[in-house]
Amino acid sequence: MLTFIGIGLSDPDDITVKGLRKLRAADHVYLEGYTSKINAPKDELEQFYEQDITVAPREQLEQRHDELLDEAEDEDVVILVIGDVFSATTHSMIYVEAKQRGIDVDIVHNASILTAVSQTGLQLYTFGKTTSIVYPDEDWLPSTPYHAIKDNQEHDLHTLCLLDIKADTAGMSNDEDEFMTADEAVNILYDLENKEQDGVITDDTPLIVVQDITGPNHAIWSGTMGSIDEFGGDTPLHSIIIPGSMHDMESEMLSYAVSS
Amino acid sequence: MLTFIGIGLSDPDDITVKGLRKLRAADHVYLEGYTSKINAPKDELEQFYEQDITVAPREQLEQRHDELLDEAEDEDVVILVIGDVFSATTHSMIYVEAKQRGIDVDIVHNASILTAVSQTGLQLYTFGKTTSIVYPDEDWLPSTPYHAIKDNQEHDLHTLCLLDIKADTAGMSNDEDEFMTADEAVNILYDLENKEQDGVITDDTPLIVVQDITGPNHAIWSGTMGSIDEFGGDTPLHSIIIPGSMHDMESEMLSYAVSS
Repeated sequence: MLTFIGIGLSDPDDITVKGLRKLRAADHVYLEGYTSKINAPKDELEQFYEQDITVAPREQLEQRHDELLDEAEDEDVVILVIGDVFSATTHSMIYVEAKQRGIDVDIVHNASILTAVSQTGLQLYTFGKTTSIVYPDEDWLPSTPYHAIKDNQEHDLHTLCLLDIKADTAGMSNDEDEFMTADEAVNILYDLENKEQDGVITDDTPLIVVQDITGPNHAIWSGTMGSIDEFGGDTPLHSIIIPGSMHDMESEMLSYAVSS
Repeated sequence: MLTFIGIGLSDPDDITVKGLRKLRAADHVYLEGYTSKINAPKDELEQFYEQDITVAPREQLEQRHDELLDEAEDEDVVILVIGDVFSATTHSMIYVEAKQRGIDVDIVHNASILTAVSQTGLQLYTFGKTTSIVYPDEDWLPSTPYHAIKDNQEHDLHTLCLLDIKADTAGMSNDEDEFMTADEAVNILYDLENKEQDGVITDDTPLIVVQDITGPNHAIWSGTMGSIDEFGGDTPLHSIIIPGSMHDMESEMLSYAVSS
């Protein structure tokens, strides 16, 4: 049996009661710590969960997961995912391979940044497609986020941009350089504007930054692309939103969310 | 203090450990049970939570929440929301009014249908704007979902449609007639096609139905608008997805999700 368990966004006690029960009953527990970060070191998670955890680097989950599936043939194996469970293609791939081998798969959902951003006041119904901003790879600068923002702007929808993480086990690391910050993301968007020249990103384009949405370094900032220097937040994780027009209720809730 | 706590999608133990702790410490607990449904009657929730719950009808939360905010001035008041917390405008409105009165607001997120649908195999990045299909009101049939599906189709994105609930405390009810079913939703989409005539909905339009996503009546069905009769599921909650093109990984995971 293979069980995917979402562990939420910040703290050890963000796990669900159901998830905790299944986690404690498992024979092997792997933590996927390269697509996000949780505000607790491994030993603190282990103490709270009362269970040993193996931090699985990206390469193990993406390419060397045969061993994990071998174990799941006749033992209870858990993969812990920060946020909700199928946030990355990797997890879908492991799900499919488990099913191909006839292994039962169980799923315990949890909170995700995709809906937690509603804490900014922006209504989830007024978001378009979500996108990711990744670090440029040598000379390759993918335009995907630029086009997503452009399409959403054309329909006056908000765009949530998730930001890249460098290291293979960054989620368990204390090196803050491994997480893309809002100002790095804004610089990449300006580079994409220079490349594409469609007028999607200007100094006046509205911008919302979400830092550590439910954690101790929580901050929500609202301004424009050109005034990103005023944000000043420097602790992970950052996400950015390029909002469309806001309803009165959205603006009002945002103004309180910014000052909380 | 006012605390919004998401309680997840199905079972009493879908609450997070953090949410349960805050819920147990509260002076008054209200459950918002008109935007979704959980698979447990009130007394079962109370027993598991070890806390008394007041089921708040829609009208109380939308219009008569002054009393609740009065209590929150100097006591700990919790509003439980099925799924994640800011899924409906009502909750944002109560958040704003609490802040206007200087009341501290705390938030505990949880799983939402908006990301749990990734259990179908469809990647969350390939969804466009989410929409709702509501029961027609006398002669008024809002075209909002039709336009959302059309816009998403133009960008080859999936559309998640959440389906209406009739009663004010339907989430705590056992009357299954109060929840819009997939075939009712499909009929409404055909009516909208007759009205708008843009060729968005045809017999061949692909359709995925999600029933009781994490609960005992779990079912995922994949077919077309014209073959909805073959679905046959009749227990709440239903959501439907009008998918765009699927990547191989999405199709393959969907085929396993359908047979699970």
